[in-house]
Amino acid sequence: MGVLHEECGVFGIYSPKRTQLADLAYCALSALQHRGQESAGIAVNDDGVITSVRDVGLVSEVFTTDRLKSLGEGNIAVGHVRYSTTGSDSRRNAQPLRINHYKGQLALAHNGNLTNAHILRRELESMGSIFHSTTDTEVIAYIIVQERLRARSIEDAVAAAMDRLDGAYSLVLSSPSKLIAARDPHGFRPLCMGAMPDGVTVFASESCALDAIGAEFIRDLLPGEIITVGEDGIAVDTSHCGRFPQTLCAFEYIYFARPDSVMDGCSVHTARQRAGRILAREHPAEADVIIGVPDSGLDAAIGYARESGIPYGLGFVKNKYIGRTFIAPEQAMRERNVSIKLNPIRATVEGKRVVLIDDSIVRGTTSRRIVSLLRKAGAREIHMRISAPPFISACYYGTDIDSPETLIANRHSVEEIAALIGVDSLGYLPVERVRNLPEHTCGLCTACFDRNYPTAIPEKAAKGRFEYKIHANREEL
Amino acid sequence: MGVLHEECGVFGIYSPKRTQLADLAYCALSALQHRGQESAGIAVNDDGVITSVRDVGLVSEVFTTDRLKSLGEGNIAVGHVRYSTTGSDSRRNAQPLRINHYKGQLALAHNGNLTNAHILRRELESMGSIFHSTTDTEVIAYIIVQERLRARSIEDAVAAAMDRLDGAYSLVLSSPSKLIAARDPHGFRPLCMGAMPDGVTVFASESCALDAIGAEFIRDLLPGEIITVGEDGIAVDTSHCGRFPQTLCAFEYIYFARPDSVMDGCSVHTARQRAGRILAREHPAEADVIIGVPDSGLDAAIGYARESGIPYGLGFVKNKYIGRTFIAPEQAMRERNVSIKLNPIRATVEGKRVVLIDDSIVRGTTSRRIVSLLRKAGAREIHMRISAPPFISACYYGTDIDSPETLIANRHSVEEIAALIGVDSLGYLPVERVRNLPEHTCGLCTACFDRNYPTAIPEKAAKGRFEYKIHANREEL
Amino acid sequence: MGVLHEECGVFGIYSPKRTQLADLAYCALSALQHRGQESAGIAVNDDGVITSVRDVGLVSEVFTTDRLKSLGEGNIAVGHVRYSTTGSDSRRNAQPLRINHYKGQLALAHNGNLTNAHILRRELESMGSIFHSTTDTEVIAYIIVQERLRARSIEDAVAAAMDRLDGAYSLVLSSPSKLIAARDPHGFRPLCMGAMPDGVTVFASESCALDAIGAEFIRDLLPGEIITVGEDGIAVDTSHCGRFPQTLCAFEYIYFARPDSVMDGCSVHTARQRAGRILAREHPAEADVIIGVPDSGLDAAIGYARESGIPYGLGFVKNKYIGRTFIAPEQAMRERNVSIKLNPIRATVEGKRVVLIDDSIVRGTTSRRIVSLLRKAGAREIHMRISAPPFISACYYGTDIDSPETLIANRHSVEEIAALIGVDSLGYLPVERVRNLPEHTCGLCTACFDRNYPTAIPEKAAKGRFEYKIHANREEL
Amino acid sequence: MGVLHEECGVFGIYSPKRTQLADLAYCALSALQHRGQESAGIAVNDDGVITSVRDVGLVSEVFTTDRLKSLGEGNIAVGHVRYSTTGSDSRRNAQPLRINHYKGQLALAHNGNLTNAHILRRELESMGSIFHSTTDTEVIAYIIVQERLRARSIEDAVAAAMDRLDGAYSLVLSSPSKLIAARDPHGFRPLCMGAMPDGVTVFASESCALDAIGAEFIRDLLPGEIITVGEDGIAVDTSHCGRFPQTLCAFEYIYFARPDSVMDGCSVHTARQRAGRILAREHPAEADVIIGVPDSGLDAAIGYARESGIPYGLGFVKNKYIGRTFIAPEQAMRERNVSIKLNPIRATVEGKRVVLIDDSIVRGTTSRRIVSLLRKAGAREIHMRISAPPFISACYYGTDIDSPETLIANRHSVEEIAALIGVDSLGYLPVERVRNLPEHTCGLCTACFDRNYPTAIPEKAAKGRFEYKIHANREEL
Repeated sequence: MGVLHEECGVFGIYSPKRTQLADLAYCALSALQHRGQESAGIAVNDDGVITSVRDVGLVSEVFTTDRLKSLGEGNIAVGHVRYSTTGSDSRRNAQPLRINHYKGQLALAHNGNLTNAHILRRELESMGSIFHSTTDTEVIAYIIVQERLRARSIEDAVAAAMDRLDGAYSLVLSSPSKLIAARDPHGFRPLCMGAMPDGVTVFASESCALDAIGAEFIRDLLPGEIITVGEDGIAVDTSHCGRFPQTLCAFEYIYFARPDSVMDGCSVHTARQRAGRILAREHPAEADVIIGVPDSGLDAAIGYARESGIPYGLGFVKNKYIGRTFIAPEQAMRERNVSIKLNPIRATVEGKRVVLIDDSIVRGTTSRRIVSLLRKAGAREIHMRISAPPFISACYYGTDIDSPETLIANRHSVEEIAALIGVDSLGYLPVERVRNLPEHTCGLCTACFDRNYPTAIPEKAAKGRFEYKIHANREEL
Repeated sequence: MGVLHEECGVFGIYSPKRTQLADLAYCALSALQHRGQESAGIAVNDDGVITSVRDVGLVSEVFTTDRLKSLGEGNIAVGHVRYSTTGSDSRRNAQPLRINHYKGQLALAHNGNLTNAHILRRELESMGSIFHSTTDTEVIAYIIVQERLRARSIEDAVAAAMDRLDGAYSLVLSSPSKLIAARDPHGFRPLCMGAMPDGVTVFASESCALDAIGAEFIRDLLPGEIITVGEDGIAVDTSHCGRFPQTLCAFEYIYFARPDSVMDGCSVHTARQRAGRILAREHPAEADVIIGVPDSGLDAAIGYARESGIPYGLGFVKNKYIGRTFIAPEQAMRERNVSIKLNPIRATVEGKRVVLIDDSIVRGTTSRRIVSLLRKAGAREIHMRISAPPFISACYYGTDIDSPETLIANRHSVEEIAALIGVDSLGYLPVERVRNLPEHTCGLCTACFDRNYPTAIPEKAAKGRFEYKIHANREEL
Repeated sequence: MGVLHEECGVFGIYSPKRTQLADLAYCALSALQHRGQESAGIAVNDDGVITSVRDVGLVSEVFTTDRLKSLGEGNIAVGHVRYSTTGSDSRRNAQPLRINHYKGQLALAHNGNLTNAHILRRELESMGSIFHSTTDTEVIAYIIVQERLRARSIEDAVAAAMDRLDGAYSLVLSSPSKLIAARDPHGFRPLCMGAMPDGVTVFASESCALDAIGAEFIRDLLPGEIITVGEDGIAVDTSHCGRFPQTLCAFEYIYFARPDSVMDGCSVHTARQRAGRILAREHPAEADVIIGVPDSGLDAAIGYARESGIPYGLGFVKNKYIGRTFIAPEQAMRERNVSIKLNPIRATVEGKRVVLIDDSIVRGTTSRRIVSLLRKAGAREIHMRISAPPFISACYYGTDIDSPETLIANRHSVEEIAALIGVDSLGYLPVERVRNLPEHTCGLCTACFDRNYPTAIPEKAAKGRFEYKIHANREEL
Repeated sequence: MGVLHEECGVFGIYSPKRTQLADLAYCALSALQHRGQESAGIAVNDDGVITSVRDVGLVSEVFTTDRLKSLGEGNIAVGHVRYSTTGSDSRRNAQPLRINHYKGQLALAHNGNLTNAHILRRELESMGSIFHSTTDTEVIAYIIVQERLRARSIEDAVAAAMDRLDGAYSLVLSSPSKLIAARDPHGFRPLCMGAMPDGVTVFASESCALDAIGAEFIRDLLPGEIITVGEDGIAVDTSHCGRFPQTLCAFEYIYFARPDSVMDGCSVHTARQRAGRILAREHPAEADVIIGVPDSGLDAAIGYARESGIPYGLGFVKNKYIGRTFIAPEQAMRERNVSIKLNPIRATVEGKRVVLIDDSIVRGTTSRRIVSLLRKAGAREIHMRISAPPFISACYYGTDIDSPETLIANRHSVEEIAALIGVDSLGYLPVERVRNLPEHTCGLCTACFDRNYPTAIPEKAAKGRFEYKIHANREEL
C-alpha cells in the first residue's frame, strides 16, 4: 500500500546495425512503468539525428502504434518513465531531454535527484544560460555540454561533469554516435546492463526490463562507473568508483522495485521475504493467518508466514480496473465506508486472528481504512507488521516523501500509532536490520529512517525553488 | 490465466427518495468490471423519464465526471457491464437497453444467453417487429412489452415473459416506477440482493458490488425468483421457482467471479481453495514450492499448499500497467521470448520443483509460454495442476468458449497435453469433484466438462445468425 | 445570419458492381453538411449485410480514415447528416437507422417531419412495438416493415407505407438488394437523382452533393415519386404523384440550401439574387454601399446592388476558424462589445449610408448586435433589408423554428422592430412575392409566413411527446 | 486561394490590476488564427510566476475551458499562433517560449525570421549553450538573456539584443513585471498597440485582434520601436528607428492579413481592392462577370468590378465545414474531377465571359483545377487576373515560399502559364505598382517579386540547418 513515488526509470539500447529500436524500448519501459506513471518518452538516434516522442501518460497511452512508427529506425534509443504528478506543466518536464549543442544532438534520461542542482543552476543562469524545465536533468545536460567544450570526447565530458554533480543520478545518454550509462559514486539509484544477440547492449534501471525484452542480465553498474558503447565496442571508466561507500536507497528493496528484479546482486523478492522473516522473529504474534496488503506487502507476508509457520492467506482483492483515471464520486465516498479499490476476502479473515503486513505507514489514513475494512469483514484480532522502519526524515535523493511534519511516526509513538489506526499490535522492521535485507550486504542509504545522510544535504529553502512537489492523489485507497 | 469471457454484470438500485444514484451505480459497476470490459452503461429513472449513458470502454472511461452528472437524480438506476469484443457495432449492443413502449420507458440489463432467442426473434420479426441490435436482450424486451399489453402489471408481464424465455438470464429492469430483478429458473447466472440505509434496495450480479457501495448483503435470488421493489415495498414472486434443479454455472466459482464474492451461499475464494486442496489429494507432487498463475490461479495454489504442506510462493509478477490498450509490438514479440505481461520471480523457482496452478487450458498456447518462462527462470521440474476439468463442449448459457474443435482437451489426452505444453506432470480437477467446490452443494452446470446440458440446446446454425463471436485477443499472454 | 435548422440531408448510391462506396458517401455528405451538423452516418450494404458507422459530430470528425475503411465494399450505401443539438442522446437518434426484420436488414435515411408520427407511434406501441429513438424515422421504418409483411416487394411496401405517412419526408432506403428513394406527395423537402459512370445511380438532398462526387445531375424526384434501383435497373412509381399541389419549403431557397444547388429546376443562388432585386424595387434606399451578412445574405446583396446600381461591398470578415467547439469566454463576452465571429470592414462602411441584407430576423438579438458593430465601424445610415417575409408561425415539416411567442415579428410592427434593432429603415420581402423567387413557379410552402398550411396540422401537445427541441446555441453571433 | 504561410501571430496584454487575462488572449488569438494554425499558446504572468499552455492545434482546440481556467489570473499575458506544419516535433516549437533565467521567468512570442540566426546559434553553442527547439525564438531569448546580464533593465537588454539580431521580428515579451513589444528596424512584420478601459494596454500582430476584444486601436509600432509597459506606465525607445527605410512585407497586404485589419495606416481591404482596380486598368477584359477565388480574391474582384463597370458575382461556394482534419479519400479524388472544397455557382458563370481574380499562382496546380471547374460549369471565356506580381525568389523574412525551382513563374512566361492553366488570358499586377497598394506609400519589401532584398541574405546551406520546412498540404484544393 505504498504511497511514495520514485522519480524515474531509465533505459538505453545500442545496436551495431541500424534497426527498429523503439519497440524494444516500449517493452522495456512498460516493465519499468511502476517507477513512474506521469510521463513517458523515447528518443531514437539515427546517425546523429534524434527523433523523440514524449508525453504525459502511461507508456501504452503515449505510444500509439503510429507514434512508435514515427520514431523510425536507428542505432541508439533512450527511454524514460516519470512519476505521477498532475498539472499541465508535467509535459514540459517529460524526458528524455533532447538538446542541440555545438557537437550535435544529445538525448538524456535521468533517475535521481542532485543535491547541488540549485547551486549549479544559479551559476549557469548567472552566465546567461536559460532553462526551459524545472528538472535537474536540464542542469546535468548543461554541465555535460559545458564540459564537452573542453573535453576530448563525450564520455570524458560525462566524467568531468560527474566531478561537479552531487547527489543521486543514474544516467543514460545518447550522443550522435555513442550510448553512455553512468551511475553516481554513491550508487543511490540502480542501473544494470544486459546483452542481446547481434552485439546489442542495453541499460535499464531494473533487471525486469531486461527480462521484458528477452535480454540477458550482465551485471549492475558499479557506483561511479561510466560505460560507453559505440562503434569501437564497450569502454569502462571506473575513475569515479570507490570514492564513497555504496548507499543504495533501501526503499528500492522495500517498495520501489519490482519483486522480479535483481538489484546489486540481490533479488528484491527475497529481500522482502527476508523482511517478513525478520518481523516474524522480532515481532511474533499469536495468529491464525498472515495476509499482505497488495501488492507490495505480499512478499513480506510470505516470509512472515514461512518463518512463523502460520498459514499465508489471500486477504484482499484489489480492483485492477481502477486506474489513474478513476475518480471515486465524492458523495459515495464521503457517506459510506466504501471498499472500491481494495476489498477484504471475508472467508480468509472472518473470526481469525490476522497478521497484516504492509510496507509503510505514511500519514496513517490509509492504514486506518484498511484495518477498518478487515474489522468489518470479521477479523478478530489484527496485528500489523511493517516491513520498513518508521519514516522520520526527508529524502534528498529522488524519493518524494511528505514533509516530516505530516509523517505519523514523527508525531506519535508506536503504541499511539497502533491505537490511531486501530490494531491490536504493531511492529516495525528495526532500523538496524535494514542492512540485512539483501543477502550480500551492499551498503544502503537509510537516511529517511535514521537521518544518516551519506552526503551534505541542501539548504531547505533552496529545494523548493524550482521543484514543485505535488502531493495530490498520494493516498491510494 | 483464464481467457473465457462471461457476457455481463448487472446492477440495480431503488431509493424511496429521489437522489443521486449514478455515483453508486458507478462504484458498483467498477466492482463488476471483471465480468465485462467491452462496454458499460447506466440508466437513471427519474419519475418515468429515463436518462442513460452507454458506451464502449471501461466504466472509468465511459463515465467521466460530466457524464455522471448528466444522469441527474432519480429513484431507480440500472447498470451494466459487457464483455470485451472489438468492432464499431459493439456500441449498438451496449446496455442497459432503453426502450419506449405503450406504458412508458423501460431500461433493461441482462446477463446470460437465451437458448430460444432465434426462435422468438423469428416469430417477432414475422409479425413486423424490427430489431436494432443483435442481442438477446432486445428479444427479452420485446417479449416483456408484448406481455405487458395483456398483463395487469409490469411484474406480471415479466412473469409471463419468463414462461416463454429458455436458457440463462439474470435481469434487472426499471419500469417507470418499479425496479424488478429476476433470475432464470435454472439459476445459471448469479444475482443477489442487498440493502442500504433509508430503505434503499440494490441488486447485483455479485456480492463484491454490494461491498463496493457499502451495502449489506441480504441474500441471493432463488432460481426463478422475481423481486419487485416500488412505492409499496418489496414483492416476491416465487411462482417460477423449483421448476428445475439449480444449475449455477461452475465456471462462476472456477474463474468468472471475484474471489471476495459469496455466491449462492459459498465464498468463491473458499471454493477455489478447495479446488486446490482436491488437486493436492488427487494429483499430489513431490515439490519444493507451489505457485499460481495470477490472478485466478492464486486461490487454488494456496489451497494446494495448505493441503500438501509444501510452501506457497510468489511465482510471477504480472504487469498491472498493461491494459486493454497494450499492443505488443510485433517484431519484438516474434523475435524473442518476451515476458512483458507476466515475468517469473527467479528467486522463487530457480532450482526448485514447482507445482504450477492455473484455472484452465484452452488451446494450450498460453500455458506453453508460461511453462517456458519458468524453465528459463531455472525451475527444475514443473507439475501443472488445473483447478477445473478439461473443456470439451460448447456453452449455450452466456460463456464465450471457443468452438470445440480448437479446445486442446478435445484433441489430446492428458499425457499428450503435458508433453505439448512441456510439463513434467499434469493433473486436472476430476469432473465428479466439481460439485464439491461450494460447501453447501448447490447444483452446478458442468455441461462444458461433461455435456450434461440442463436444457434443450439450440440448433447450431441458428446461433450464429445474429450473434457474432469475436475471438481476437483471447489469449492474454 | 440565419439561425433556423433544417433537420437533415440524405444520400444514397447504387453500384452494379461491388466497390468502395463509403468514400463517395463521405464526400457527398461533406457537401450536405450545412443541412445538419449534429451527427453523421453511413451504412454500406454488402450483399444484404449492412455495416454502419454513425456518431455525433461533423462528417470529417465522425469518419476517420479507419472508420471509413471499416465500412468495406458493397453495392449500396446510404448516408445522412443531422442538425445540431446537444446532449448524449443525440447519438441514439443518429441515422441511417439500421434495422433487422423478417426479410433481412434495412438502412433508412430520412429528411423531414411527419405530421401524424405520434398517432402512428401510439398505434404501433399499443400493439407491442418498442421504440429505441425519439425520431420519426423509426416510425417510418416500422410502417414499412409492417407493410412488407403483406407486400410483394420492398418498393410496394414503401408505396403502401406512403399511404399512411402524412407530412414531409424525403427518404433513401437500402433493402438487401435495392436502393429506394421516395419524396412525399407535397414535395416539402428536395431530393434529386444523379448518374455516374458504370451505371452508378445516386440520390441526394441537394445537387451540390452530386457535384462533390463528380456525378451528373439527372433530375429532381417528383413530389410523391418512388424510384427503385436494383439488379433489374431503375423502376419508377408515380402512383402517389399529383395528389397535392407541390409545396416545396420556401426556406430551402431563402436559407437552407447551398447557393450552388439547383432545386426543382431553379438555382438557389439565382432565387436569392432575385429576392435582393425584389427588395431593391419594393424597399429602395438612398445609399452608398450594399453589404450582406455572411454567408446567406451575400447573394441577395448582389441582387440588390445590381438592381439598384449602388455598389456592392464586402461588409464583414467572418472568422472561419470559429467552429462548433468555440465557446466565447463568458467574462470577455459580457463585459465588452466583442466581434469575434463577425467583424465589420471599416473601410467599406465608414461614413457611408449602408444597405444591410440578411435572410431573417428571429428574435432580434443577433441583428441588434450586427447593427451596433456597423455603427461602431462608422456607418452613417443603416437600411436593413430582409430577403424573407416576417416569421409568424410554427413549422411542422422539419424546420426547427422557435415557438411563435419568441418571434419578434409576432410581437412587434416593422417600425418597432426597426427601432429595436437600431436601423434607419427596415424592409421585408413581401409574402406575396415569395412565389417569384424560383424562375419557374414551382409551388412553395409559405406557412411560416402566412399560416397557409398545406396539410392538417397536428395537435400541439402531441408534438413534444417524443421530440425534444433544443434551442441552445441558436444565436450564432 | 493562397497557399503561402506566414509564420506567426503575436499578442500581449498588460493590466495594472491583477485579473483574468487568458480569456482576452484567447479571443485575440482566435482573430489572429489565419496567421498560424499549427499551434497556439498563452502564457500568463502572475507576479513573476508564469503559467503557460501551448499545444498543437487551433486556438479553440488547444484551449478547452479547463485549460483556460488553469492559466489563472495575472497582470500580463502573452499569446502566440504558429503556422501549419505536421509532425510530432511541432509541439516542441510551440510558443510563447517560457524560459527561466537569472532574474526570473520570461515568456516570449515572436513573428518573423532572423537572417543571422544560424550564426548567433553557432556562437552560443560554442560557448556551451544548449537548444531545445529549432526556432529562431530560442536564439532571440538567449541573446536577450545574455544582454540582461550586463543591462540595467530588461528593456535595455532587448534594445542591446536588437543590435545583434538581423532580419524580421515582431516580439512580445513578458518579464516578471513588464510587457515589452518590439518591431525590427525594417518593419518587416506588423505590430500594433491598443488600449482598453482601466489602463489596460495590448499589442497584436493585426488590428483585427484588437477589434475582437473590444480594444481601441492606438497606433502601429514604428520600425525599430520598443515599447515597455509596467508599473511606471508606458516607455518608448525609438533609438533603433530610422536606421533603414521601412520595408513591410507586401504579402501582408496581398494575402496574409485579414481584410478588416488596418496595417501601417492602410486598410488591407482597401489595398486589395486597389490591386483589383489596378488590374482592371492594366489588364482590361471584355467580360460579363467578375468573380474572385474565395476568400482572398474577393476584395480585388470587387475593385476590378468597380473600376471596369462589369458586374461582380458570387463565383464559388467554399465548403466551410472542411477543416484541417478533412482528408479527401484517395480513390474518390483520383478518379473523378471532384469539387468538394470549392464548387462553382453555375448560375453565375454559365455561358458567361468571366474575369477570375486570385492572389497568386504558386505551382499552377490549384489554378488549373479551378479553371477546369469553371469550364465544366459552363464559363465561355476565362480571363485570369492575379492581384500580385509573379513569385520568382525566396523569402528570408518569415514567409514559407516554395523553393524557386518549383515556382511556375520561374520556369514559364505569362503566355505559357496561361496555356498551362487553361485560361483565355492572364494578367499579373505589375511589380512597380505594388508600392501603390497602400494609400500612404509606406515602404514595402517586394524581394520575392524583384529580388531587391532589403538586408544581406544568409548563405543558403545554413538555413536548412535547424529549420525544417514542411510543404505537405500546401495546395489547399
